[in-house]
Amino acid sequence: MPNEVTRGELTQPSYAAALDARDPLAACRDEFVGAESRLVYFDGNSLGRPLRATAGRLAAFVEEEWGGRLIRGWDERWYDLPLTLGDEVGRVCLGAAPGQTTLGDSTTVLLYKLVRAAVDAAESTSGSRRTEVVLDTDNFPTDRYVVEGIAEERGLTVRWIDVDRTAGVNLDQVREVVGEQTALVLLSHVAYRSGHLADARAVTAAVHDAGALVLWDLCHSVGAVPVELDAWGVDLAVGCTYKYLNGGPGSPAFAYVAQRHQDRLMQPIRGWMGHADPFLMGPAYQPAAGMRRFISGTPAVVGMLAMQDMLALIDRAGMAAVRDKSRRLTSYAVDLADARLADLGVTVASPRDPAQRGGHVTLQHERMREVTAELWRRDVIPDYRDPGGLRIGLSPLSTSFEEVRRGLEAVREVLLSPR
Amino acid sequence: MPNEVTRGELTQPSYAAALDARDPLAACRDEFVGAESRLVYFDGNSLGRPLRATAGRLAAFVEEEWGGRLIRGWDERWYDLPLTLGDEVGRVCLGAAPGQTTLGDSTTVLLYKLVRAAVDAAESTSGSRRTEVVLDTDNFPTDRYVVEGIAEERGLTVRWIDVDRTAGVNLDQVREVVGEQTALVLLSHVAYRSGHLADARAVTAAVHDAGALVLWDLCHSVGAVPVELDAWGVDLAVGCTYKYLNGGPGSPAFAYVAQRHQDRLMQPIRGWMGHADPFLMGPAYQPAAGMRRFISGTPAVVGMLAMQDMLALIDRAGMAAVRDKSRRLTSYAVDLADARLADLGVTVASPRDPAQRGGHVTLQHERMREVTAELWRRDVIPDYRDPGGLRIGLSPLSTSFEEVRRGLEAVREVLLSPR
Repeated sequence: MPNEVTRGELTQPSYAAALDARDPLAACRDEFVGAESRLVYFDGNSLGRPLRATAGRLAAFVEEEWGGRLIRGWDERWYDLPLTLGDEVGRVCLGAAPGQTTLGDSTTVLLYKLVRAAVDAAESTSGSRRTEVVLDTDNFPTDRYVVEGIAEERGLTVRWIDVDRTAGVNLDQVREVVGEQTALVLLSHVAYRSGHLADARAVTAAVHDAGALVLWDLCHSVGAVPVELDAWGVDLAVGCTYKYLNGGPGSPAFAYVAQRHQDRLMQPIRGWMGHADPFLMGPAYQPAAGMRRFISGTPAVVGMLAMQDMLALIDRAGMAAVRDKSRRLTSYAVDLADARLADLGVTVASPRDPAQRGGHVTLQHERMREVTAELWRRDVIPDYRDPGGLRIGLSPLSTSFEEVRRGLEAVREVLLSPR
Repeated sequence: MPNEVTRGELTQPSYAAALDARDPLAACRDEFVGAESRLVYFDGNSLGRPLRATAGRLAAFVEEEWGGRLIRGWDERWYDLPLTLGDEVGRVCLGAAPGQTTLGDSTTVLLYKLVRAAVDAAESTSGSRRTEVVLDTDNFPTDRYVVEGIAEERGLTVRWIDVDRTAGVNLDQVREVVGEQTALVLLSHVAYRSGHLADARAVTAAVHDAGALVLWDLCHSVGAVPVELDAWGVDLAVGCTYKYLNGGPGSPAFAYVAQRHQDRLMQPIRGWMGHADPFLMGPAYQPAAGMRRFISGTPAVVGMLAMQDMLALIDRAGMAAVRDKSRRLTSYAVDLADARLADLGVTVASPRDPAQRGGHVTLQHERMREVTAELWRRDVIPDYRDPGGLRIGLSPLSTSFEEVRRGLEAVREVLLSPR
């Protein structure tokens, strides 16, 4: 809590209003659908709000581009869209030079493709003993399931980093487990439960010291936390676009493959859209050069439309300013939790140091499952994550400080109300 | 050509107008974007036109369902949408009882998942010698690439049925190649080049006689040709929704798995959305019962919206009436090709018997590549398929007989114009 503020002041509407008044990005919030409603939305880290521009963009696409250009749209724009829009995600959010990012498939499918590409390349290296994949016990379920499935089918070993649920993977843990048998390390940049922000640059270097590759899952960081894939020397990354990139439910995920690896890695799902010459329709699969080989089937063009509005807004605001607001929002949530919920037994299950925290904060209490249900009835919408975690996702451009104050106050009211 | 009609009559606008006047489905065409334009669209089998209702449906989804319900939309509708909308595709187009069809991923990814599920199950059968996958040399590139890739990684053998490009796979060829080593037969119901319509019921029975499974690729038949998966006893099927189902560029594909196989087959891309209890986020992957286990990641909800308008229209028209119009359209195109293009050296590279033909007709001529380019300049939009194939796709509900006449007349004009 800021030293100069008393607990009483902090929880006043006037205090939140002052924070909003000082927020250089406050006006962005009006660009989202529903900004005017009283709803408190703490789930922009799970499904971002649509921008007001998006409905018109989709309708115009149907009438003009799809309806007007029809099949010609493929030659004119859509065929390259996974790569051109991937480059845009790379430029605005990932610190990735062009030619290394593509959009398409779900995060799960992209994880499968990149993990397979990495371990298959290790396997085909003559005399390689790199038969281990490292990940942490609190990684997102899909990441764990995908790796376990691949380990079973390829006869690999999964090495687990055991992490506390209120923290995340630290550098020492990584150094301890990686070695000459490690093929790949798969970690989340921001932990989906605790919000812990990994030191991706240092971890990447540690993995490289062991001669292994790293794959970062950026689902909970992209669009909220600055990412510098090229500068950090990252090998592979995936992330989703329906959270802080506001692409809409089920919008396609992105994959990043550092240029130096592209031509030596092969993903296993060979489709015509990843072929060197798709319309040759020739007898044998010949992977395209560069990033295109990581595409399999026909790209989900309609699903890629909405995120363009959010990318433009983030580009305008700048990722540094977005992160700055994100830190202030989560710090305010932590301060309010200390001031108004600690006496009711609520603990903060996220790092207290904002430098080690992504865009969400998890509050722990044994009653949080029922609390979440009651909050939803009161139009306060957080997420519940077992066991006992109330996850407060604070999408920086669509969330106000006043919203945070009202939401945390509602948690207090529900905890105080008769069961 | 109908006996009572002379070649001269056939090509008159009045003849086409009479066919349109007698068409019980003619009014459906007005429901599509661009119906009023002079454009001749022969590519509805590659990317169907949007319905006029679709722009509004997408805009309303953004404003009301996504923007209004936000994350609550998952509980309320989206989580089950791949299965509920899959059932709708199954009911309207596939002859599939509920609980056997799901939407999601691209056709390529679904092919990978189902082929892997089938061959992995064969492999795990103790003492099984079923190590062969059968497909035909003129199957769509993705089908061939996926199977070859899986064969390489799993040490299987691909057995090719060699087919003539103007025909398709026949029953005798299938009987000849399947046997006690066959794990799976993957064929296209309608061949993407020739438009040949396979006898799916008889071929399925022949595959079963050999103790193998069949996987039908329905991309070029669904929505144009009646399909009866349950009645034919089909094991597995995939198909895409942006052709005759007008789901928009890159809309998600569907997969069908006959109920009897669901609990013994495992697809390899294990994601949280295919877990028995996704929000448990537990330590190990436990596949859901039934069709849900074939889902991997977060379903592409936005991409599933548009097809709902076309499904409703097909349901209203009835698949039998759609097929009836489709046959009349392709027969008229063949008649016009005979009357107006045969003297210029154009041949029909599709079956002449409408019972053996899907919804498109391919015309062969060595100059067709340049002819296609010139047709596009004249707002006549067919597809070109190497070598020398002009593919005329006649989406039954959005194509008029007059459009067919003008388009074929334009082919003649281009072939007669100085090079």
